[in-house]
Amino acid sequence: MDMPVTAYRRLEERYRRIALLRDIDSMLHWDMSTVMPAGAAEPRAEQMAVIKVLCHGLLADPETGEAIAAAQEEGGLDSWQAANLAEMRRQWLHASAVDAALTERLAKATSACEMAWRAARPKGDFAAVRPLLQTVLDLTRRSAEAKAQSLGLTPFDALMDAFEPGVGAKEIDRLFAPLMAALPDLVARITEHQKSKPPLPLEGPFPAAAQRALCRRLMEFLGFDFERGRLDTSLHPFCGGAAGDVRITTRYDESNFTKSVMGVLHETGHALYEQGLPARWRYQPVGRVHSMAIHESQSLLVEMQVCRSRGFLTFAAPMIAEAFGGQGAAWSADNLYRHATRVAPGAIRVDADEATYPLHVLLRYRLEKAMIAGELALADLPAAWNEGMKELLGFTPAHDGEGCLQDIHWFDGAWGYFPSYTLGAMAAAQLFEAATAAEPAIRPAIGKGDFAPLLAWLRTNVHSQASRLRAMDLIHQASGRPLEAGALLRHLERRYLA
Amino acid sequence: MDMPVTAYRRLEERYRRIALLRDIDSMLHWDMSTVMPAGAAEPRAEQMAVIKVLCHGLLADPETGEAIAAAQEEGGLDSWQAANLAEMRRQWLHASAVDAALTERLAKATSACEMAWRAARPKGDFAAVRPLLQTVLDLTRRSAEAKAQSLGLTPFDALMDAFEPGVGAKEIDRLFAPLMAALPDLVARITEHQKSKPPLPLEGPFPAAAQRALCRRLMEFLGFDFERGRLDTSLHPFCGGAAGDVRITTRYDESNFTKSVMGVLHETGHALYEQGLPARWRYQPVGRVHSMAIHESQSLLVEMQVCRSRGFLTFAAPMIAEAFGGQGAAWSADNLYRHATRVAPGAIRVDADEATYPLHVLLRYRLEKAMIAGELALADLPAAWNEGMKELLGFTPAHDGEGCLQDIHWFDGAWGYFPSYTLGAMAAAQLFEAATAAEPAIRPAIGKGDFAPLLAWLRTNVHSQASRLRAMDLIHQASGRPLEAGALLRHLERRYLA
Repeated sequence: MDMPVTAYRRLEERYRRIALLRDIDSMLHWDMSTVMPAGAAEPRAEQMAVIKVLCHGLLADPETGEAIAAAQEEGGLDSWQAANLAEMRRQWLHASAVDAALTERLAKATSACEMAWRAARPKGDFAAVRPLLQTVLDLTRRSAEAKAQSLGLTPFDALMDAFEPGVGAKEIDRLFAPLMAALPDLVARITEHQKSKPPLPLEGPFPAAAQRALCRRLMEFLGFDFERGRLDTSLHPFCGGAAGDVRITTRYDESNFTKSVMGVLHETGHALYEQGLPARWRYQPVGRVHSMAIHESQSLLVEMQVCRSRGFLTFAAPMIAEAFGGQGAAWSADNLYRHATRVAPGAIRVDADEATYPLHVLLRYRLEKAMIAGELALADLPAAWNEGMKELLGFTPAHDGEGCLQDIHWFDGAWGYFPSYTLGAMAAAQLFEAATAAEPAIRPAIGKGDFAPLLAWLRTNVHSQASRLRAMDLIHQASGRPLEAGALLRHLERRYLA
Repeated sequence: MDMPVTAYRRLEERYRRIALLRDIDSMLHWDMSTVMPAGAAEPRAEQMAVIKVLCHGLLADPETGEAIAAAQEEGGLDSWQAANLAEMRRQWLHASAVDAALTERLAKATSACEMAWRAARPKGDFAAVRPLLQTVLDLTRRSAEAKAQSLGLTPFDALMDAFEPGVGAKEIDRLFAPLMAALPDLVARITEHQKSKPPLPLEGPFPAAAQRALCRRLMEFLGFDFERGRLDTSLHPFCGGAAGDVRITTRYDESNFTKSVMGVLHETGHALYEQGLPARWRYQPVGRVHSMAIHESQSLLVEMQVCRSRGFLTFAAPMIAEAFGGQGAAWSADNLYRHATRVAPGAIRVDADEATYPLHVLLRYRLEKAMIAGELALADLPAAWNEGMKELLGFTPAHDGEGCLQDIHWFDGAWGYFPSYTLGAMAAAQLFEAATAAEPAIRPAIGKGDFAPLLAWLRTNVHSQASRLRAMDLIHQASGRPLEAGALLRHLERRYLA
């Protein structure tokens, strides 16, 4: 007997196709970043554009909206299906809120702006890219207005909703307040505390092949499944690939192995999450991760909470020393730990330590909110950036290349993304605190290179849940309490001042 | 002023999308064959299935047929556009002739049959795969009937038309007759002639890295553009990738370097063709190659006509010897030439030399025609195969694994493909004869490792033409006369008996 084809089933079929097209897009992106010959950039861009057009066509189609309404009418869905339908609706609202002409103008404007930014950044030449960024900002504000109407949110919250479904500026302000209040003083105390114990230098070079072998070995210890994933090399590290084929990348600096190793461990956190998502839902919206904060919580949990801990480095130090033929006190667990936990305020976000990182985020969040609200003109951005840096980090960038030009986000059209980094750090601390409280075996096991107890907890409480719950509900359920700054502050106090 | 959007322009947009989807499919296939982790086979199959469904949907859509009729009505097309429209129509007829249910049944049947064949071949167990092959054959015959109706061809010619547009069995019979009449005696004379001069053995091992470096060096000499292509490793060598990003593969046997080197040179012939297609038409049907014979003519021209010649090997011998640290008479150009031109009747087509290869093709062509006509039952195939081998090559296979199970084609649903190999060999000989007659500088230049004169001739007379002409017209125009067996026979006489 055939089941009647319900509106919900039709939607599953449609979103399954979208999910597979996105996986294909992601494979093309992986290829482009790792192995594609340089001369193939233009045909690759054409291929990726077709995939995007097909995805957008399937999603923004009025039939999708009609089927969503019909499926809501039909009812009879279990909790996974209901969450799936809600996520389908959110994606459809985002895609259909903005008319095709504006979508296309914005796509072209960000593409042109990003290209100009690549040239302007090394020269610190904000003026060169400002007109193009102005176009991106104007169109982004129009897009935000349209999405605000459809989603019933403020324009800034409508932008954030693309990266952090259901989380708005009010909640960010509330969550960030105690963290940001405490951090400047905390950072000052940490730098003072660390003054007397600088790490011994590590003598290179550190051959790329040895770094790579070490990275693979550590990935295996952490539980990365090489039967369903890869490690490769690219200019900018990322975690990509597709469902069932998770690929991470890094880049090797032969004068410094910490960056590649810690970068790989960070991406491994993302990858373990992807490899742990429920196979049953792998091609449906509910089976994928839409909260950038939760994704970042998994990478930061692995990198910051686990791999920069004294316990992990006690286990890993002999392996690291062996990889590079290192001997003596510089290669001791204690010295490697000092390297991994060095705090030093600096100009560049991506180089920041975990104590100063939230201050970089706060600055960007304040500025992007003001620009979207029309309260800060682009002409005033460089000065506002530098003043904010001085206030929050006691630091004035040498030029705009180390200032407001350093991040790709705004130039690439990603407005409202920055808060997710710090939400992720807060969630990582809170989840790790909850995991180690629930399973006291986790910490001692990590010290012996056994990550199975931690991974089991994450699989059960986070990975297997995919997007069945919104970010804040997932953290609440997994950790037993609402997200707040306490766990991250306690972690920083304990690690850096105890 | 905007140009009115004509039916022809709408078709160009639609087929552009199809071309890009096919390029994407080809990239996914490259990835699967070279770097994909083993556990990702199932998600990859899902991705490729979606691309195929989307392509078929765009192509078989009644709107496509209506637009083709309207474009024919509109007229006003130049010769490239007219050829483009004709090729659009041919593809649409193939896609729309067969109803969706049969298309799907055939796709599933070939997929199941191919899997069973992979298991049956090593065991030589034809009985195990026969029921599945019977389903494939039955559905293929139904599909051929449907295509025959739409295309106004016989069923077998309708199948061939998918690989060799416009060429049917009558023409094949006419072209093959003098070749096949001459070959058995010619092969006997060659083997007799070669008896007294066996090549000196080449002592290995030949490290894979050295083979790879040699292959890359030779590819560069031939004119392969590594800015728009790659060389990689896969179990089965192929030329794939996409427009503007041509990727060839090989496999390295450390006890025998000739296979990988000659295999790479063969694929380089395919790749030079792809890299030489007109950029202006790269995403339109007329800008791509639909004749498997012409494609094979370019690989065989490079491998057989050029790279197995005494002139080429005189140039390449020092480079080959250097690659493996070889010294003495075994590494002389003369001995390498003896290796490259050894003729020996054997059971396996893909290992066959150029003199016996057409006889392998003739056997398969006879048998597949009889099976499609319903004149040969699958139960009788093994015996018919072995009799044919005995008759044509004086050879009885030890078991069906070296007999009727050796090739993937029928099991994978590719009926009517085999003649293209020999048409390609005939065309390669005729085109090379014409090129060297028109440009006497070509042969001496090859002896010095300078392929520019040959490549220039091929670019002008073959590559830049893409599918503006049908295969037979292209060969006629490029060589100044209709395709016939003479050039291949003259080449064999000259190379092996002079």
